[in-house]
Amino acid sequence: MSERTPDPVGEAPTETAGADTGSDVGLLSPVRVGTPVESAVGDHAWLQAMLDAEAALARAQASVGTVPGWAAQAVTAAARAERLDVRALALEARETANPVVGLVKAFTAVVAQDSPNAAEYVHRGSTSQDILDTGAMLVARRALLLITADLRRTAAALARTAQTHRDTPMAGRTLGLHAVPTTFGLKAAGWRQLVLEAAERLERVLHGGLPVSLGGAAGTMAGYLQYAGDAQSSAPLPAPSPLPPAGPARLVDAFAAETGLARPVLPWHALRTPVADLGAALAHAAGALGKIAADVQVLTRTEIAEAGEPAGTGRGASSAMPHKRNPVLATLIRSAALQVPALAAVLVQCLSGEDERSAGAWHAEWQPLRECLRLTGGAAHTAVELADGLVVHPEQMRANLGLTGGLIVSERIAAVLAPRLGKVAARELLTRASARVYDSGETLGEVLAALPELRGVVGDEELARLLDPGGYTGAAGPLVDRALGGDAG
Amino acid sequence: MSERTPDPVGEAPTETAGADTGSDVGLLSPVRVGTPVESAVGDHAWLQAMLDAEAALARAQASVGTVPGWAAQAVTAAARAERLDVRALALEARETANPVVGLVKAFTAVVAQDSPNAAEYVHRGSTSQDILDTGAMLVARRALLLITADLRRTAAALARTAQTHRDTPMAGRTLGLHAVPTTFGLKAAGWRQLVLEAAERLERVLHGGLPVSLGGAAGTMAGYLQYAGDAQSSAPLPAPSPLPPAGPARLVDAFAAETGLARPVLPWHALRTPVADLGAALAHAAGALGKIAADVQVLTRTEIAEAGEPAGTGRGASSAMPHKRNPVLATLIRSAALQVPALAAVLVQCLSGEDERSAGAWHAEWQPLRECLRLTGGAAHTAVELADGLVVHPEQMRANLGLTGGLIVSERIAAVLAPRLGKVAARELLTRASARVYDSGETLGEVLAALPELRGVVGDEELARLLDPGGYTGAAGPLVDRALGGDAG
Amino acid sequence: MSERTPDPVGEAPTETAGADTGSDVGLLSPVRVGTPVESAVGDHAWLQAMLDAEAALARAQASVGTVPGWAAQAVTAAARAERLDVRALALEARETANPVVGLVKAFTAVVAQDSPNAAEYVHRGSTSQDILDTGAMLVARRALLLITADLRRTAAALARTAQTHRDTPMAGRTLGLHAVPTTFGLKAAGWRQLVLEAAERLERVLHGGLPVSLGGAAGTMAGYLQYAGDAQSSAPLPAPSPLPPAGPARLVDAFAAETGLARPVLPWHALRTPVADLGAALAHAAGALGKIAADVQVLTRTEIAEAGEPAGTGRGASSAMPHKRNPVLATLIRSAALQVPALAAVLVQCLSGEDERSAGAWHAEWQPLRECLRLTGGAAHTAVELADGLVVHPEQMRANLGLTGGLIVSERIAAVLAPRLGKVAARELLTRASARVYDSGETLGEVLAALPELRGVVGDEELARLLDPGGYTGAAGPLVDRALGGDAG
Amino acid sequence: MSERTPDPVGEAPTETAGADTGSDVGLLSPVRVGTPVESAVGDHAWLQAMLDAEAALARAQASVGTVPGWAAQAVTAAARAERLDVRALALEARETANPVVGLVKAFTAVVAQDSPNAAEYVHRGSTSQDILDTGAMLVARRALLLITADLRRTAAALARTAQTHRDTPMAGRTLGLHAVPTTFGLKAAGWRQLVLEAAERLERVLHGGLPVSLGGAAGTMAGYLQYAGDAQSSAPLPAPSPLPPAGPARLVDAFAAETGLARPVLPWHALRTPVADLGAALAHAAGALGKIAADVQVLTRTEIAEAGEPAGTGRGASSAMPHKRNPVLATLIRSAALQVPALAAVLVQCLSGEDERSAGAWHAEWQPLRECLRLTGGAAHTAVELADGLVVHPEQMRANLGLTGGLIVSERIAAVLAPRLGKVAARELLTRASARVYDSGETLGEVLAALPELRGVVGDEELARLLDPGGYTGAAGPLVDRALGGDAG
Repeated sequence: MSERTPDPVGEAPTETAGADTGSDVGLLSPVRVGTPVESAVGDHAWLQAMLDAEAALARAQASVGTVPGWAAQAVTAAARAERLDVRALALEARETANPVVGLVKAFTAVVAQDSPNAAEYVHRGSTSQDILDTGAMLVARRALLLITADLRRTAAALARTAQTHRDTPMAGRTLGLHAVPTTFGLKAAGWRQLVLEAAERLERVLHGGLPVSLGGAAGTMAGYLQYAGDAQSSAPLPAPSPLPPAGPARLVDAFAAETGLARPVLPWHALRTPVADLGAALAHAAGALGKIAADVQVLTRTEIAEAGEPAGTGRGASSAMPHKRNPVLATLIRSAALQVPALAAVLVQCLSGEDERSAGAWHAEWQPLRECLRLTGGAAHTAVELADGLVVHPEQMRANLGLTGGLIVSERIAAVLAPRLGKVAARELLTRASARVYDSGETLGEVLAALPELRGVVGDEELARLLDPGGYTGAAGPLVDRALGGDAG
Repeated sequence: MSERTPDPVGEAPTETAGADTGSDVGLLSPVRVGTPVESAVGDHAWLQAMLDAEAALARAQASVGTVPGWAAQAVTAAARAERLDVRALALEARETANPVVGLVKAFTAVVAQDSPNAAEYVHRGSTSQDILDTGAMLVARRALLLITADLRRTAAALARTAQTHRDTPMAGRTLGLHAVPTTFGLKAAGWRQLVLEAAERLERVLHGGLPVSLGGAAGTMAGYLQYAGDAQSSAPLPAPSPLPPAGPARLVDAFAAETGLARPVLPWHALRTPVADLGAALAHAAGALGKIAADVQVLTRTEIAEAGEPAGTGRGASSAMPHKRNPVLATLIRSAALQVPALAAVLVQCLSGEDERSAGAWHAEWQPLRECLRLTGGAAHTAVELADGLVVHPEQMRANLGLTGGLIVSERIAAVLAPRLGKVAARELLTRASARVYDSGETLGEVLAALPELRGVVGDEELARLLDPGGYTGAAGPLVDRALGGDAG
Repeated sequence: MSERTPDPVGEAPTETAGADTGSDVGLLSPVRVGTPVESAVGDHAWLQAMLDAEAALARAQASVGTVPGWAAQAVTAAARAERLDVRALALEARETANPVVGLVKAFTAVVAQDSPNAAEYVHRGSTSQDILDTGAMLVARRALLLITADLRRTAAALARTAQTHRDTPMAGRTLGLHAVPTTFGLKAAGWRQLVLEAAERLERVLHGGLPVSLGGAAGTMAGYLQYAGDAQSSAPLPAPSPLPPAGPARLVDAFAAETGLARPVLPWHALRTPVADLGAALAHAAGALGKIAADVQVLTRTEIAEAGEPAGTGRGASSAMPHKRNPVLATLIRSAALQVPALAAVLVQCLSGEDERSAGAWHAEWQPLRECLRLTGGAAHTAVELADGLVVHPEQMRANLGLTGGLIVSERIAAVLAPRLGKVAARELLTRASARVYDSGETLGEVLAALPELRGVVGDEELARLLDPGGYTGAAGPLVDRALGGDAG
Repeated sequence: MSERTPDPVGEAPTETAGADTGSDVGLLSPVRVGTPVESAVGDHAWLQAMLDAEAALARAQASVGTVPGWAAQAVTAAARAERLDVRALALEARETANPVVGLVKAFTAVVAQDSPNAAEYVHRGSTSQDILDTGAMLVARRALLLITADLRRTAAALARTAQTHRDTPMAGRTLGLHAVPTTFGLKAAGWRQLVLEAAERLERVLHGGLPVSLGGAAGTMAGYLQYAGDAQSSAPLPAPSPLPPAGPARLVDAFAAETGLARPVLPWHALRTPVADLGAALAHAAGALGKIAADVQVLTRTEIAEAGEPAGTGRGASSAMPHKRNPVLATLIRSAALQVPALAAVLVQCLSGEDERSAGAWHAEWQPLRECLRLTGGAAHTAVELADGLVVHPEQMRANLGLTGGLIVSERIAAVLAPRLGKVAARELLTRASARVYDSGETLGEVLAALPELRGVVGDEELARLLDPGGYTGAAGPLVDRALGGDAG
């Protein structure tokens, strides 16, 4: 389109640093802004991880003897993101649909500055996807270490809460209504359980699920082997001979050792389980944290007021309303929980890419993967603060338990009366009594005490005991013990 | 969690500009990097749009007489993003879950520097959501203007292509196989039709679907009205009287006039149709462009080779394989088409937020909305280049038409023979003949000519004519004329 | 896979009717079970719609003279789903990946029973996609008529509620906490607004967005034209001559007239805007209804109790807890709102299918489209009942307004004091007073009355008036009037 | 809404069996119709699974002594879905938002017919969610057994293919273009690897991830314990004493033993990891199968023709085009792969439900879970057939390898020349030569042979050997061996 005017940003050579290039510094994503995971997965970190992959590749090749050791050292020494212009690389990525082609060119020049002869050995036999995917796994590993640590911290804080409130009765709520009593300890133990399950799923990926990518142009490793052959001899090739099975395996092993990543069964350019697994585990974690946030939001409602976010931090102020202390941490977490599942669905959708490298399905993974890491990481970091500082109001829990005038234990009364009156009659009686509680404003105790058919069936003392919500928390206590005693298993 | 060490990034006061804060400059999103829409929706632009909203609010209040004109002027003059630190605002947003509280504080200080008395009038009676939502609509408008212009350019280029190739026959493909002939003109006209439909849907949102947000703390406009009352009199309030219906309406009208945005029926803090509509229209556009990309990828396959991406640009080079000219533009577009529908689903999911402002569903919209705008805008910009420069190979289309030895017109032969042999017999004959073509390698013409049952039924000359794929393109030509002649209908 | 045992269901010829074939009769989808839309989109209805498409095609061909009128009549008369075995057709669809190939065979046999000569004219020149897509549009039309009627009924009920409660004050809630007062009328007017917007979006699709599909094997209409030519003459074809532009147009017009559907610009086998539009509009509707459900669930919470679902219907009983009256209708609606956006995302994703007919993207649309129609339709039907019968408790709203001891109007007090004390001082004072309210249990009125710095600044009478939550509902009333007075704008 | 006319379906007492109730028998979902998993997850099977849960609960209660053994036997004997009307239960589910309340009523009546005294013990102390969730896990287990068996069969077939074609060279394709050679064996080994990874993920869920649900009304097991107490004594309750920790544990153990399901750490009414895990594993499986389908679709394209779907089955016929043999199996699989990720995203989203039982998030799981099972199961069943019968055309693969006139090994030539000419010069030479191949139609061999700068650098014989695509398949063979030799790990 020759008549089009130049892009005001993309093609302008004089753009000033950062201000008008459309960069994101977190303004629209407070759940992750400033958290450790944010800087671990930003463009700078991603570039560094790709350079780490290039350097590790050179060292791996050196270790199997196909690149000189001094060259691998020079490549490693030069592999510092500060020496490249990440924005320029980003812009150049439009030429080839990925940032590695430009990176290799620019990085080769950097290496050449330091060591002209070493430049020859940069990215030798390699392909863009090997570098980008290995870089992505390095980024993911760093992020997952942060995230799982935060999840473990969150679980530890929730364990303390569950222990403290093992026997704190509160209303169990189903479909928004008081159902039967439960304890806050059981609720907290359930949150912890979810968090532990999330941590386990991420740790499963972390330990074994993050492989190096080493396939070459179409996943056969042919380029690596070709250069490996040349490294041993620059004479004309001998007639084809069976490849030594150990050759490619040794290189993969060395690359895995240099990066600390896992060794894949096959090159996985087009076998995207590692990325899909990351998406699934991160979505689970975000959803698990979202469950806690949803519950905290219920408990902090003005009318319920059974819990509050950490006080004394200044968090949650409102510009318009001086009195508000908004549940900011839960809100941030929920904002992530609403986004990650959809982003993870993109990742699993991309499993179905075509050919030895998809024209688009691969490219569609990058930003959603980063976003899944960043949002979940931000949510986990936020959850530590929430779990650590959550303020619990047992007295308000107790007060709310009384709101239904005893109806919250109607299940219990029905169960007790069933063998005495017959199941049908017992239930009918409770339904009638419940209606009367609603209509008259009397308590269930008052209503039941006035019923002639209960004379001699239930004594006053027994009735009083049965009506105590705190006496009908079932196995809540032992369940807390069980959950805290064992692992998440 | 008192024992936690400070965040390496978020709390570090000495961080250097940009490099290690985890910012995104587009490295993982080549489809949009450097395109105009990228800078139109980046954090800097978003901040500016929120400042524009603050300034327009002050002017609107001035126009209805509740803020002094000089104060509105001072606020407007100060409303420049360069005067604020966008990263600092982003970090501060964690305190309140949105960036406006910090923005108001910082912007008030900026105004106060210029005009101490004007600072009093910043954000008067307002609430965070009014500013963020109005800013989002301003950002969306700017982005939609860019996107629809690019879609219109794409459609214009495709119209030229459709016209040029109105009668260029090619294989129509269904389920990946040659079905019957079509024309490249009809295919291009179909692409154009989709692009026009996408443009129409976005333009419908652009013209009327992007409203100002003006609700105050909980959507009643009470704060605005309270300050409006005070502006007229600082005496003790008179006894409550019915609010003049024109009061709030006048302020909304003025705000709409100042911003150029639409006037909503009601404050829409919790009525998120504008955001859901944006998501839906952007997802449609990304999907429509994705259709073109999918087709171009088929046509550029090595074995098919009926089209190619714009040549002579250096695009599509491969580092490993000197011969490749990758379909980079189609790949970029497809990478966006795979992401936007999921992001748009987040936006429509957020319709179901609770209360007068959701604790999370609102916050979950921001980044996905920006990403939908940016990815679709990048794809549209890329599509202009693709549509403008697409290289078409009619001779290869013709060659491919011959690949099935005439089977591509078997439907036609069956239709012609049906009235002569009976429908069942005709079809049975063609099925048999087709099998023979597959097995023997003979052409359908040769097979049919050898069939005794066709003697006297079809003459050689007629058969030759029937077997010409170019003669069986149906209404492709008139359909192109119809599509190009009218609007998208 | 020769060793595999036969499928217990699929291949068993003696299966008993329905019981063990894996059919769905709605057990897992109570939101739609038994609602009118369910039967309008079930397999039986879908089969009937495809038969209606076949019949309309024959009549359209008769109207342009390419099929005898008596044959079209015979085809139409035979086009009754009861005459076919829908399960057998479903099973046969595995052979061709769509149910139309088998349908044409079976339907042809049915027509042949009635009128042997008419069988020749069934599906003449047609293709599976024309029938399935036209059938889908007929199904969608029937469903949309039901859905939009239910949305209009819901809106009408909500309008009555908004009118009745125009001036019923209640707490406005943001991030789960009391913010400032609003009215229940404004909340109901907002719900109605969303429902109207949903209806408008669906009606836009209904009126013009549901086209016939008439493309033939690859979208060129060649088969139709070939048969049309033959119909006029069974003599050998003349040399190719330009197709009369009116020919295909006339057939499309006639098909549109016979079905009552719209006339597309181009055959849309691979241009899937109609399906994507349906998905977008249905997702919006489900989300809009989900907003109402979310709010009703908040209002019916035991502690809040400001509203209740329709009483006296027996709905909402719990087997275990005799006292519960669960918000069943809101729960059903929300269950749909959580599903439809994801299903609609599948539909928009399928826009990017390849070629003249995608090998999978087309096929992936059918069930999600039906599910979107059915879930949204069920939710709309449920919403009528909810909106009609919603029980409102103004006295409880009033009581809850008092829960914060006056803090709910702190914004107002700050606004009033700002011009008297200075903005900063006023806000600081309110923040201090709010903290005291929290700590001491005193009301804001008591705290303020005791502050020496307010002596002479605010009189007792004025303070009392300012502290009345019902006096600080801003423009809620006029906004209700505006919303109810006009259309959805 | 009193003026509404009765629902034509839901309220009509005289509806005829099945025909017009809107039931699904698979017409729109050919990927799963008639497959074993379809009947394993249909409404009938789901009802049976819920009855199995009721029966297992009674037996478990009997085993811990709180229900008489004869009653548990009677309950078990009566627990047959045929004795209930599944459609009536579905309709009744609208009253309570779940089908269990009606089921308990109807099932109690059935038990009472057989054994009046046993009816008392049906659903004793239980809650709807325990039965529905346990039933869902039973359904999932049955489905997963089918799915994993089909995945293992698919993998076995692919292993044979990979072995057979270990050394069959073909073009490796990236971004749709020939890149470097690979082998069909490596491609098939990659498919198998993905399928094994999918099977492992599902088996991980199958073995340990499918727990019984036993929480009672709000997850405390209080109802079960209350009845357990009563069973031991009908005398007035003693004063509260600490619950024996073993009590609830024993009941859960017994329930797990009776159902064969796992024992959860905690009641999981609101801790939805099992459902989210199912979604994640099923989405992975569908995506993995979708990858195979995508590749098969490429290979079966008319122009590529390197593979074909199983012949001789009649599959893939087209009504309009006698010659077509559509890739029907791949199309069916892809149709599932496009749907499941979105449905699984709904399941993980539902993790974030509120309270002890969400008002909607729980209910939104049921149909998507079933659909994920059914679509993935159908795809897996289809994949067995595809993998077993895939027809491979090595000669066409070889022919296609020649299409680029040798350019497919340009990477190799560049690598060989680099040490002889210098890396930059070598690459520049290849780029020039490639351009000449494109422009002139000469082969790369011809072009290179004519280059003066290669005289003496590469001999004719070496050049011929280097240009053989079959000699540049890298480690493809050893990689196949490695993949087939080991497990997926």
